[in-house]
Parts: sequence; structure tokens; C-alpha cells
Amino acid sequence: MKDLTPQSGDALLIVDLQNDFLPGGSLAVPHGDQVIAPLKRYADFFRSASLPIFASRDWHPETHCSFEEQGGPWPPHCIQGTEGADFAAELNLADTVVISKAQTEEADAYSAFQGTDLDSRLKEKGVRRLFIGGLATDYCVLNTVRDAVKNTFEVVLLQDAIRAVNVNPEDEARALNEMRELGCRFATVNDICLDPAQASALLTDLYQLTMLKSYNDQGMTRQAVFEFFVRDLPPHRNFLMCAGVEPVLRYLEALHFSPQELDALKRSGRFPQELLDSLRTFRFTGDVDAMPEGTVFFANEPVLRITAPLPEAQFVETRIINLLHYSILVASKAARCVLAAQGRGRLVDFGLRRAHGAEAGWLAARSSFLAGFDGTATVLAEATDNIPVYGTMAHSYIQAHDSEEAAFYEFCRSWPQNTTLLLDTYDVFEATESVIRLSRKLEKNGIRIQGVRLDSGDMQEQAREVRRRLDEAGLEHIKIFVSGNLDEHAIAEYMANDIPVEGFGIGTRLVVSDDAPFLECAYKLQEYDGKPRRKRSKGKATLPGAKQVFRLRDAGGRFANDQLGLAAEELEGETLIAPMMRGGRRLHPSVSLQTLRAHAQLQLMALPEPLRSLGTAAPSYPVTVSENLKELTQKVDRQTHASSLGLNGSVFRTIADFFRKAF
Amino acid sequence: MKDLTPQSGDALLIVDLQNDFLPGGSLAVPHGDQVIAPLKRYADFFRSASLPIFASRDWHPETHCSFEEQGGPWPPHCIQGTEGADFAAELNLADTVVISKAQTEEADAYSAFQGTDLDSRLKEKGVRRLFIGGLATDYCVLNTVRDAVKNTFEVVLLQDAIRAVNVNPEDEARALNEMRELGCRFATVNDICLDPAQASALLTDLYQLTMLKSYNDQGMTRQAVFEFFVRDLPPHRNFLMCAGVEPVLRYLEALHFSPQELDALKRSGRFPQELLDSLRTFRFTGDVDAMPEGTVFFANEPVLRITAPLPEAQFVETRIINLLHYSILVASKAARCVLAAQGRGRLVDFGLRRAHGAEAGWLAARSSFLAGFDGTATVLAEATDNIPVYGTMAHSYIQAHDSEEAAFYEFCRSWPQNTTLLLDTYDVFEATESVIRLSRKLEKNGIRIQGVRLDSGDMQEQAREVRRRLDEAGLEHIKIFVSGNLDEHAIAEYMANDIPVEGFGIGTRLVVSDDAPFLECAYKLQEYDGKPRRKRSKGKATLPGAKQVFRLRDAGGRFANDQLGLAAEELEGETLIAPMMRGGRRLHPSVSLQTLRAHAQLQLMALPEPLRSLGTAAPSYPVTVSENLKELTQKVDRQTHASSLGLNGSVFRTIADFFRKAF
Repeated sequence: MKDLTPQSGDALLIVDLQNDFLPGGSLAVPHGDQVIAPLKRYADFFRSASLPIFASRDWHPETHCSFEEQGGPWPPHCIQGTEGADFAAELNLADTVVISKAQTEEADAYSAFQGTDLDSRLKEKGVRRLFIGGLATDYCVLNTVRDAVKNTFEVVLLQDAIRAVNVNPEDEARALNEMRELGCRFATVNDICLDPAQASALLTDLYQLTMLKSYNDQGMTRQAVFEFFVRDLPPHRNFLMCAGVEPVLRYLEALHFSPQELDALKRSGRFPQELLDSLRTFRFTGDVDAMPEGTVFFANEPVLRITAPLPEAQFVETRIINLLHYSILVASKAARCVLAAQGRGRLVDFGLRRAHGAEAGWLAARSSFLAGFDGTATVLAEATDNIPVYGTMAHSYIQAHDSEEAAFYEFCRSWPQNTTLLLDTYDVFEATESVIRLSRKLEKNGIRIQGVRLDSGDMQEQAREVRRRLDEAGLEHIKIFVSGNLDEHAIAEYMANDIPVEGFGIGTRLVVSDDAPFLECAYKLQEYDGKPRRKRSKGKATLPGAKQVFRLRDAGGRFANDQLGLAAEELEGETLIAPMMRGGRRLHPSVSLQTLRAHAQLQLMALPEPLRSLGTAAPSYPVTVSENLKELTQKVDRQTHASSLGLNGSVFRTIADFFRKAF
Repeated sequence: MKDLTPQSGDALLIVDLQNDFLPGGSLAVPHGDQVIAPLKRYADFFRSASLPIFASRDWHPETHCSFEEQGGPWPPHCIQGTEGADFAAELNLADTVVISKAQTEEADAYSAFQGTDLDSRLKEKGVRRLFIGGLATDYCVLNTVRDAVKNTFEVVLLQDAIRAVNVNPEDEARALNEMRELGCRFATVNDICLDPAQASALLTDLYQLTMLKSYNDQGMTRQAVFEFFVRDLPPHRNFLMCAGVEPVLRYLEALHFSPQELDALKRSGRFPQELLDSLRTFRFTGDVDAMPEGTVFFANEPVLRITAPLPEAQFVETRIINLLHYSILVASKAARCVLAAQGRGRLVDFGLRRAHGAEAGWLAARSSFLAGFDGTATVLAEATDNIPVYGTMAHSYIQAHDSEEAAFYEFCRSWPQNTTLLLDTYDVFEATESVIRLSRKLEKNGIRIQGVRLDSGDMQEQAREVRRRLDEAGLEHIKIFVSGNLDEHAIAEYMANDIPVEGFGIGTRLVVSDDAPFLECAYKLQEYDGKPRRKRSKGKATLPGAKQVFRLRDAGGRFANDQLGLAAEELEGETLIAPMMRGGRRLHPSVSLQTLRAHAQLQLMALPEPLRSLGTAAPSYPVTVSENLKELTQKVDRQTHASSLGLNGSVFRTIADFFRKAF
């Protein structure tokens, strides 16, 4: 049986993913927006595998026969050139073939094949199997599948990327049964795409669920604003770098409780059926505003803001912190390594094995590359984000051979294009002599030794001596690479001492951020139902309201000053927080890690000189608080105090009111 | 459509998972052993959900008609009472109904229904849907499925838990098609079980794959011995605790490259087709010996040993270190907290949000519970390992309400059985007064406030004062719980100062092991093809050969001395390394975390008094090296040196030889 992995001869067909079929549209399919995230994943996968993608659309004239006014069954929808006919905004349509159907008044078509040239265009491209998802299961998807089978295509139905209208409650089940009987196979994202950051919805704190019930009990489901920020910079750190936003967006898009997870909650006996029922349809439907990844930021600046019904905004706390905290930790440490290397050495993440678990290894590869590393040793990072991967051999490879020189020789024969040899298994200088001897032998076979790696002992001393011996032997082209216990300070020393090395493998100390293995970060409620809130605990107090960071630069383009203000204010400077998601849907296709990395590089270039040092800059970077924000804070304190005496009623005005009256 | 989650009315049917059908058996199904790991997962799941499990078996007389001697098609197999008829050893048969078939000479039966009372026993238990896996797809599984459908059961075929004989190469495909046409649905472990520690096979270092190719090129596929150990204890640490072995065993059982992963490797363009082909069937077929989780150990002691063909033993390095390193890190830190608490306070892991990624959060819950914690806040840990979960409310819950007292009141109404209230959102003592007022009000409704939590400021001082006020109000039953920035030293202070608290939430500093966020650990080749090996790099040298740890106790049962010897030696003392897996298969069903936790508690009780202190014990625990191991080390050095001059040939003798001649 052919496996489910898309391969040559396969194509993706996205059926009618248009605004009018999405919530808010004129012919909305219930929960139709839930297909967007998986379809994006499928599309990314097909695109990265250079396999064709087709997207069908209804493309009706204003007086189409299917509209009620013309006696048809449906309200007007997908009228040519209107916003309702546009594809979902977050879909990346690069390299997508668009198939328009039912374009004339009298022609109706549920199937993407009907009255279109889809069949011939697919066959032109040698397509024999179609992966089909979109809207709606019981109309256009079903009819498209019928025709696909009739036209001899194999069909894989993307089960997590379809939703039904269910005019009659059994329509969906009937459609699924028919498609199964037609020989369709069923697949989900897990069968097809690699997703290292996928975590169970149960990966959360118990109190998120207990609070959720209590909010539901009280009907406290109005909009809440939460912000994620870091309270203090760790000792000797002058800045932090934003990272982890894309994983957070993916998490929010995909968040739901699977039947297995609901079942596990039920078995715990801890939760009333009512809560479990509400979790069955639980999704994130809120807004996200955040700094783009790679942005430099400072203490108390909001990095990411969630605006959503209180139970949702509360529930996502644990995983949002879990993803942002670690991503920022590594990106910030990696940025210091990048500054220390001054562009003079290749930086590669070697940390997977001592990262704290699987996801940390993957996030570390991603975050360090974002911050300016050249690559990683972690294979998965190439598969998921196209991060360059590097790797050579382990000591065990040398040890397994009867002699070191034999090991070197065999490795070069296996990988003639990738010949970096590890020198320190026994004795670095003897190994260097082996390299010199071998090099002559191998050159005759057209194989060039490209590099050597040192991994223990006094590597600065070793590097000088190895360089001297290699140069003396006329092997100036062999590069020296070092690894083992390195961090930004070690890199800085190599640079200061002008040690002849051309690359650094940075492992453990990067991925555990050993000098600061955690950040004092928090995700705090700033506003509920339009009323600003703050926490006043000693040492953990917060500023209320939805906030924005306004950054000013000096004449040379360097960062000069940040001001923390209210999101509703207009102050001078660039605003660092940008809209990312509205109503649970992204505003834009996701940006490649390579683009974010370029942004990070520009941010590092704009750092004021004192902040580039590895020690503590004095004075630290100035972050001020706007007058409006200060006043709001005082006002909240007065009012919270007043209201903390009674059990009932609100004495607050909305933040909008507050501004109307206060200024 | 009914979802795939096993529920009331469902049963698991394991078909003929018997030794004779497994590799090495008289009628072995190719790769039949690969169904064991998923079937164990399914069985664990059904058992934990209290759903029935049935296991069928061939149970033949010696002269059964299906045997060749009797003119049948098969060699003798599954003869009653023989080892070949036994179920796979690693299957836990608790609560399993065994169905024996083809028990008489003349009766043959491929189907588990044929000539058995399976149908009536299933219907007795109200079973309507069967989840079926086992051996072999094209014989007993197929025939069982046919009868199940005939007897009106719905069938879910466990796609990852079946393997075919393929007498004719198309048999498997034909059987799968027939079962699909019969209306079977197909599922895999991912559709049914939660697996937080499942990670992509690509979560590895590139060099593991480059070395693999080179080993294959040279035919270097003989047995290698690798050991995982920690070189040095971190500063101020007196011992470490073994953890992570069960996740490693699960990883090794499940290890394979999925079609998507192979495809990703292919798309990278980095690997020759030959290597990709070899990865398609790549599995771990080796042996594992390890300390049971919860065992206390010291520097340079092997914790886990892998004995396997070199390419396999090498490839698993990255993920084995990744799992063991972090699990040990947290278990060791948690053990210190347990010692500090002296059994006088409940310890709960609160660390998920600041753990380094998803898996770290889950592993931290698991490792801290192993080491003696009472529970965790992480919901997933209850679902996967039955770890008690605890949780109350966040500051945001208080802030979202117009007054703190209203928040307390509403929470108690939502969770009358779970009333621990957070005091420090605004002012701890005002909050205490609210609790006192509310408590009277709630008592009338039969609700009792059980506890309060402090999370910031000078919590020792606060705890005393809150206790005083509560006691004065006659609320002695309300317990005080503290969290926020705690670690073993903080706990010790609370104990020393006799602070009236009854529980500790230990978060960040536990899960990042802030005083020692990494260990100097390694996974090193000790022997290849019977020849001992060692690394001599400065500061990173290793002792050669497969080793064992021999531990002596004093008269009081406390640990007195460890001796590092060769695995082949017999020295005095308990041996800490035990066999866990042979030929890629576990020797025993896995042990519950609760049992391992009991072992850990006994280990901590046996720690010598000076090692129980949080400071550095002087002298440190004595670990000596056996004479044989010392001699072997010297011998290897002499011989490695000798052979490092030539490219060819082996001058080593096997380790067995070595001992035969040397002693």
C-alpha cells in the first residue's frame, strides 16, 4: 500500500477556502475557520516538497442562479471581485493554481471539476493522487471527491481540514461514509507533516482548568487582556531578544482537546461533565499582538498580548509562557555569542543532547538560528525550518576503528565532500600529523580534507600549534573548528587572542543558558471587560491596561530610548507591538525564519555600543513610562482599593471612558 | 462518526502474540516483534480505562494437523505448554482474557472466533467494537476480522500493530484491502494514546547519520558497547539519582523512520539513496542494561549500557543523552528537596511554564514524583502516569473580579472540595481577613476553606502572621501553602525556622535545576567487536569495557562504598546495573512510576548521613576501581598506542581473550 507521504504524482487540492464560507461570511460553514491552520500546514508541506497545489473557488456573477433571489437555495456568496470571494487571508497562495467555477449566471458547480479544466491541468502535471481538504464536507468537497474518483484519481481526504454545513444533521456522516465507500483514504496533519512543537492540550497547569470552570459558572467570558513580559534582565545582561512567537501562533491555531485528551480528563473523575462538554468545542478565538521575533527588548516591556474571552486568554497562559520563555532565553544568549564572534567565525548549535528534552532541542536550534547562528547539528531543524545543518564525527567513531588514521581515512572516503576530522580522541598533535600524512594520500584520489575539530583541553594553545603545523605542511586551506564547553565569553577570548579558528560549535551552555537558566517572566491580566487591572504583590507589581512600546532612535539609527505607553496612545517612535492574529485567525501568512533572522541582525546592528558588551552596561538602556500610563496606574489603585471592600458591583469605568473623562 | 477513543463497549483483541511467531520462533513473522511495543501501549491504555482485553493464542497438540509432518502447511509451532506457545514476555497479561484455539489435533483455526467462546464472552461484557492487532495480518488477523464483522462487531484495525507473513508478496496488501472493504477503520497509537515523549527520529545530530553511512560502507556492524555516565558531580552535590530509563526504553522500542521523515531526509539532498533505504528498516535490535530509576549513583558510574550493532548503538546516542541527562538533573534536584523537607511538607512540582519546552515540563513532573514529590500541577502527568495533580487559582483570577473577596467566594462555590485561596495579589493580611470573614459565611453553606497560598514577599514572616490570625479566628484547619522562587535551600530554612507551612510549590528552580542546569555527562564507546576501547582526551578520559557497579552497605544498611568493575567480574556487593532489554525487546513489563518511587525512597533512606546535607560532604562518597579494570585500562593504552601507527589490521584480542590470558 502506497504510504500517505505526499510524493511525485501527488497534488494538494484546497476546496473553496473563501471568506464567505468562513465565520462572518454570508454562507459561513460552522467552524469553517478551523480548517485554515491544517490546510496551511499541508500547503507548506506540498510547497516545500515542490508538489503542485490547486485551490478551487466559487466565482459567481452578482445574479447567480444559486442565489435565493434567483430561486436558488443560498444567499448571495462569493461574488467575483468581492472580499467574500477572496481566499482566507492567511493562506499563502504562492505557486498555487486557482480554479474558478460557476462563473456564469446559469452554471452552478459544487465540484471543482465541473465546467473547469482541472482534470486536464492535473493530468498535464502527472498528478495521479489528490489530497483534498476545504469547505464544505457535504457539498463541494463531496462532489469534488466524487468527480476525482470518476476521473481515476486516488483520493486522500484530509480529515482535519474539512467541515460540514449539516443542513440535515446527518449530512456530514453520510458524506464521510460515501467517500469512504468510494475508496478514499483518510489522513490528518500528523500523518503527513512533522510537527515538533505539537504538544497535548493537557500540557497545562491544573488551575487553568479549575479557573475555567469557575469563569464559566459565573459567566465571566468577556474580553480579557493579558501581556507576557520579563520583569528583570538577568545579571550582566543588557537586552533580550524576542523569540517563540511563531510557535505560539501555531499553538493557538491548533489548540483543541482531542477525544483522547477529553477521555483522560473524564477518567480523572475531577471534572463535571458540563466542563468536559465545553472543552469539546474549546478553541482560541482571540487576538494576538506581539513583537516580531528577533526584536530586541528590555525589562517590563510587553512582548506579546492576548485579547480574548477570559477563559481562553487564561487557559493559554501555561503553554504561551513555556514556549516564549525558553525561546527568548536561547535567542538572547545566542545573540550574545553572535556579538562576541564579530562575524569572524561560523556559529553552530551543538546543544541537542543536553537540552532539556526533545522540544528544547528543537526550539534551541530555531532560536539560535533566528539570533544569527549559521546553523545547527539537529537534523530535524532542517526538515522543519530549512536551517543549515552541520556535523562530522564523534569520538566513538575514532575509537571504533583500530587506529585513528584508519578512522580518518574511511570517513573521508564515505563523505568526500564533508571532511572535518576530530583531533582530540587520543592526542591532538599526533592526530594532526595523521591529517598531514593522509591529506597527501587523499589528494591523489581527489579528496580534500576541509577541516579539523578540537573538543577538549587548552584549545586556544592547540589551535595555534595545529595551525602552525598545517600551514607548514602547505595545508592552509584546512580550517580549524572548536567545540566543547563554549559560550559567549569563550568566543570573545578567541577573538581577543586572535586564535586561528574559523568556527565554533556551541552546545550545552547555549541551550541551557547556563548563566541565566530562567527569566523572571510573567503573563498577567491587564484588563478585563474594558477595565484596567494590576497586581500589587511586592516585587511582582504590574502596570495596568493594554500597552505598547514606543522606541526612539538616535541620529545614527541606534536605539536611544523606549517608552512604555498605553496601546491606545499615540506617542513618538516606532511601535514594537504589531497585530498578528484577530478572532483566532492570523492576519498574514507566516514569515520564514530566514526573514526573521534578517530582522534580528538589523536589531543587533542598531544596539547602542555599550549594550553590545558582554558585561553590564552602565547606565542601562532607558525605558520610561508615559504619563497616561502612570496616571492610569494610580487610578486603578485608588479604585481597586475602594472596591476591594464589597463583594458586588463594579465601580470601574471602561478604559475608553477613563480616557474620555480623564484627559 | 464515533471517534477512535476506546470507550465503554470497546475491547482490545490481541491476536496470537506468541514466541513462535516472533523472530527466533519456529514460524516467525518478519518483523513480528515490532508489534509488541504498540500493543503494550494499547493494552496499557485499555487497562487504565478499565476496558476488557482479550488475547488469543494458537494452542496446539504436538501432532496438530497444520504441521508439515501431518501434511499441513506449517512447521510445528505453538505447542501447548512450550515456550514457543507463550505470549511475548514483555506483555503484561494482568486482567487479560486468554482465548485458546485449535486445541485438538484435527481442529485448525486462524480466526480467534473459530471453535472458541470468544463471541459469547465479548457479548457478555457488552462489547460492540473490537480494536484488533497482532500476528499475522494475512492469516489470523484477517480471519479474526472477517468473523468479527460477521458477528456484527465494529472493527478498528491497529495498523501499527500488525505484520504480515507474505508467502505471496501481495498477501498483505490484499488482506488490508479486504479488511477495508469489510468496513474496518484503521488507527495507530497516535490516534488512541497520549505520548508526550514521542519525538521524531530526526531529533538527532547530523553526525549520527554521517557516521552511520560510514559504518555501513565499511561493514562495521559488529556489537558495540556504549555506556552513559556523569563525569563529575556538580558543585555542592553529593549524589545523583537515576531517572529517564523508562522513556529511553520506550524510545528504543518505537524507534523508526516514518515515511515523512525519510522523505524529509531525501529532500535535503544530503544522503545517498542507499542510506535512505537502510533507514527504512532501521530498528533498535540491541540490549539495554541500566540502573533502575530511583537508584542513587555517583560520578563515573555507568548508569545505562547499550550493547548493539555499532550503527544502532551510535545512532541512539543523542536522544538517550537528551532523555537521561534532563531526567537525572531534575530527579537529583528533587531528591534534595525531599531530603530538605524531612517528610514534613507536601512537595508539588509547579514548574511547567518555565521548563525548557513541552517535554521538559512533562519529564520534570515525572522525575520529581519519582524522587519523592507528592504531585505536580501538570495535568498531562496524571493522564500518562497517574501522578497526583494539584492546583488552585492564579492572580489573574483574583484580578479579573472586582474584589478579592468576591473572587474567593466564587471560587469556593465552583470548587467546594478544592478551596485553596491565593492571598498575595494585593495585600496578604487584608486577604487573610477576607478569608476569615468568608469562612464563616461559607461554613453555613457547608463549604470549608481548606488552605491558603502565599507566593511573594517575605513568606516566612507572612506565614507566621497568617497562621496567628487564622488560629485566633478558630481556623486551625486551614493550611498554609507557599510557592514562588523556592528550592531545597528555601525548604530547609522553613524547616529550620519551624515556619507553620504545610506544603511547597516548587517550580522554576527545580525544573531548570538552576544551581546546576547541566551535567557533565557522556555516552561513550567502551568496546567494539569484543575489543575494549577508551578515550584519552584531557579531562574527558574514560575507562574501557562493559562495566558494573558493586555497592557495599554498612551494618545499618547505609551505602558504604562503590566499586567500579568489569561487567564480567564477580565482586562483593549489590550490582546496580540490571538487564532491561535483549535483542530490542524488553525483558519485563514496565514497572509503574509508583513502584520506582518507592525504590527511590529506600535509596534516599540508605544514604549515609553526611551525603544527606545540602552542602558538600567531606570526604565524598568513596568509589573505587577494581584491579581488573585498572589493568585493562593500561593494557588498552599500550595497545592503542601500538596500533595507532598503522592503517590496517587489528592487534587487539577480544576482551574474553584478554581475561583468559591476563589473569
